[in-house]
Amino acid sequence: MRIDLNCDMGEGFGNYKIGMDDKVIQYITSANIACGWHAGDPMVMDHTVEIARAAGVGIGAHPGFPDLLGFGRRNMDCTADEICNYVVYQIGALKGFCAAHGAKLSHVKPHGNLYLTAVENEVVAEAVARAVVSVDPDLIYVALAGAKGELMSSIGKKVGLKVVYEAFPDRAYTPEGTLVSRRERGALIQDPEQVAQRALKMAKEQKVVAVDGSTIDLNAQTLCVHGDTPVAVDLVRSIKELLESEGVDVKPMAQED
Amino acid sequence: MRIDLNCDMGEGFGNYKIGMDDKVIQYITSANIACGWHAGDPMVMDHTVEIARAAGVGIGAHPGFPDLLGFGRRNMDCTADEICNYVVYQIGALKGFCAAHGAKLSHVKPHGNLYLTAVENEVVAEAVARAVVSVDPDLIYVALAGAKGELMSSIGKKVGLKVVYEAFPDRAYTPEGTLVSRRERGALIQDPEQVAQRALKMAKEQKVVAVDGSTIDLNAQTLCVHGDTPVAVDLVRSIKELLESEGVDVKPMAQED
Amino acid sequence: MRIDLNCDMGEGFGNYKIGMDDKVIQYITSANIACGWHAGDPMVMDHTVEIARAAGVGIGAHPGFPDLLGFGRRNMDCTADEICNYVVYQIGALKGFCAAHGAKLSHVKPHGNLYLTAVENEVVAEAVARAVVSVDPDLIYVALAGAKGELMSSIGKKVGLKVVYEAFPDRAYTPEGTLVSRRERGALIQDPEQVAQRALKMAKEQKVVAVDGSTIDLNAQTLCVHGDTPVAVDLVRSIKELLESEGVDVKPMAQED
Amino acid sequence: MRIDLNCDMGEGFGNYKIGMDDKVIQYITSANIACGWHAGDPMVMDHTVEIARAAGVGIGAHPGFPDLLGFGRRNMDCTADEICNYVVYQIGALKGFCAAHGAKLSHVKPHGNLYLTAVENEVVAEAVARAVVSVDPDLIYVALAGAKGELMSSIGKKVGLKVVYEAFPDRAYTPEGTLVSRRERGALIQDPEQVAQRALKMAKEQKVVAVDGSTIDLNAQTLCVHGDTPVAVDLVRSIKELLESEGVDVKPMAQED
Repeated sequence: MRIDLNCDMGEGFGNYKIGMDDKVIQYITSANIACGWHAGDPMVMDHTVEIARAAGVGIGAHPGFPDLLGFGRRNMDCTADEICNYVVYQIGALKGFCAAHGAKLSHVKPHGNLYLTAVENEVVAEAVARAVVSVDPDLIYVALAGAKGELMSSIGKKVGLKVVYEAFPDRAYTPEGTLVSRRERGALIQDPEQVAQRALKMAKEQKVVAVDGSTIDLNAQTLCVHGDTPVAVDLVRSIKELLESEGVDVKPMAQED
Repeated sequence: MRIDLNCDMGEGFGNYKIGMDDKVIQYITSANIACGWHAGDPMVMDHTVEIARAAGVGIGAHPGFPDLLGFGRRNMDCTADEICNYVVYQIGALKGFCAAHGAKLSHVKPHGNLYLTAVENEVVAEAVARAVVSVDPDLIYVALAGAKGELMSSIGKKVGLKVVYEAFPDRAYTPEGTLVSRRERGALIQDPEQVAQRALKMAKEQKVVAVDGSTIDLNAQTLCVHGDTPVAVDLVRSIKELLESEGVDVKPMAQED
Repeated sequence: MRIDLNCDMGEGFGNYKIGMDDKVIQYITSANIACGWHAGDPMVMDHTVEIARAAGVGIGAHPGFPDLLGFGRRNMDCTADEICNYVVYQIGALKGFCAAHGAKLSHVKPHGNLYLTAVENEVVAEAVARAVVSVDPDLIYVALAGAKGELMSSIGKKVGLKVVYEAFPDRAYTPEGTLVSRRERGALIQDPEQVAQRALKMAKEQKVVAVDGSTIDLNAQTLCVHGDTPVAVDLVRSIKELLESEGVDVKPMAQED
Repeated sequence: MRIDLNCDMGEGFGNYKIGMDDKVIQYITSANIACGWHAGDPMVMDHTVEIARAAGVGIGAHPGFPDLLGFGRRNMDCTADEICNYVVYQIGALKGFCAAHGAKLSHVKPHGNLYLTAVENEVVAEAVARAVVSVDPDLIYVALAGAKGELMSSIGKKVGLKVVYEAFPDRAYTPEGTLVSRRERGALIQDPEQVAQRALKMAKEQKVVAVDGSTIDLNAQTLCVHGDTPVAVDLVRSIKELLESEGVDVKPMAQED
């Protein structure tokens, strides 16, 4: 039994600081680092790679749309070639900092609307996957776990990438194994204890309790956690402590058994 | 006798096309490719790396200040760490495209005001050199030839980089071996025949005729040429043809003898 | 019989020059000036307002999405409030230059994908119109002529704006009075003589010959022309000369009879 | 006896929130609102103009260098025309939101390094002042109080602007009436009670106690306060309460007596 805890990091920009990266880094095992397009800048990237490397946390690129103003959360109608090249650029930039710190880039997880679009749109999923494999075929492609993640993950595998499935302990799932839309009531699970227990079930049993009370299978090797507030950081610590006390091996997705 | 002809390339952005990259690529041996900050974007970078690789032209990064509006030609009062990280970012991004095309990054030449500042300011020269060596110690650091280039090149060597000196056949030199300021009359040499002959003298004799008529030593392994207009491209062709007809081996700076 | 000839202008950025604004300005009667988001910058805006004022050409704002990289031609999934505020910002910025030159802003024509989206999407059309009226209720709202323009123009009128309909002499029209998609063959009419004759028919008879040969009504007070190439500029001159020789009064849309 | 309390506001951007604008607005009388270049965006500008108008606070433009990454705090070597046009653009953009909210723009205070450079450099001071007067000659130009502010203010007056002098209650002054450099110890006064008393002395007596203990004249009609932290907001409230309890009339710089 093993699991990875991944967290988006390095999302400040210039004078703007967000997230509690220096705190949450000790409780996670993979960092998805913004690459300067939807968030992040070279100073932030340098610092985030440094603390991730020092903490033994897996380093991943978190590329997004060229939309700092919208934090990469708005869809942009880009061509496949544009998306591919935008992702190559961002992965490359982060690899520059990995080289500077003697660290290895382990994975790529698209950000925000680029992720959402890759989940739904074959052309976008393929463009992102093609970018990843072209820069470094050893990179892991993080894809959505569950029914709706099949498109994205199958394309990742088709281009030759190792795919790791991601689940969200603080999000409600439908009986079909898809995420309940954020627009619906109950989409976000806010009770810390409940979130930690869901994380444990995901890690230990590869299962989750859906909104209708049924228990469904959910094959995930990494769980997405958050580090933007003190409460969120406490929750991550709780999750990690619970997992470890229950005998789950919490370690980076790229680490050998 | 060998020389390299380097040219700034990939300086379009989005809908904006400048330069005649597809034409000039056949007459040069090293391309300095903009990395998206003062100019260039992922689509342009992808295309430029592709044509450089196909033409057997050495690929270099051409990082600049974060000032697309000023084309990197205005000084920005950045800290050493900012400059270092900005350069790491840009080199990394270009390396992403090199990887995607199975090409190798050979050199780094700072752009515009970043270059000018590195020539004059030890802190900036060191920040750029530190960035280059941290991403890849095998990269060549292109520095200004002549008296004023000593600071930049000595710092490049100090951090362990191979340094290649650059001269400008179309620029007037003082008897002291420095460039005549662009603000002074006669700073730019516009007669194509004269520029080609100066390039030949630089390549064959490592000498240049200064503004006072004296002949001075100028140790340069690469000559900077331009590809922004049909006239400029014709000039580059003339230079290359003259050099080759005179027995000079025109090849990329990084290529083994 | 009167008509306005409008042209998108001021679409350079920093070191990037596009368009032949200084040439075409003498043959048009309204300028749609980019406001720094999809194109344009303060130096370009200042110059463009100056030459438009000097030529007696009506000055309009040409606001676009925050996407310089995509030249405002890609859809961005913005909220109504975002679009409204983006347009307020851009109109305001251009009004700053109008004030500095003692000129009056006469109209607003959205750019690229913002225009296309306003044509199709009621929420976007309303957001743009609301922005225009909130900055200055005397501004003219330029909307697409023909069947598909009804949504955009009716919303403009609803918020209290004067609406001017725009037609495209170099674009093919369907028998239903909509533009033939650019993706279809024959969408662009390239013969200069034919374009000029179509402009004349639009101005004199308020009619256009559709792709099926039928003649349809098309109520337009302004015709969109282009100034990006010498050929395009020649065409604009031809159009203006033909219109004037046929007794059409070519003048700015905002000018009193 | 009257004084104005001015505060920089609207300095968030997209997803990034900074400052406690909604809190501090009730204790100040003039807001300097970022215009989207060093900080701020149309959504933030809209909201900030709205709360300022609702609170009866004077609305000012706070234009800066085109350097979001450096928050406008780094010098950029722009030409006079560039600076003038950059400022016209930013003032115009903010005036757009003023129009939308039926509010009046009252003043302009340059931000960060643009302010610092205007204080020291005649060309920059003149470029900014020229921009202000060209957009609206009724705007107030906020200039540094004390000996070093003479250049900036005299240029403002020369171009025909009303100038208002600004002092900093939380900054140490030399006996010559200039600000002690931030690099020196004691440059910032951190004791709230002391800052409030200094503000009172500035407002009531037009005097300040310099670092050597001497009391010097300081002619200031507006005092700069900060709203970025709960502590800062408390301090502003204390200042305002002290001033009012001592009979000082705290009101916007533009308001008639």
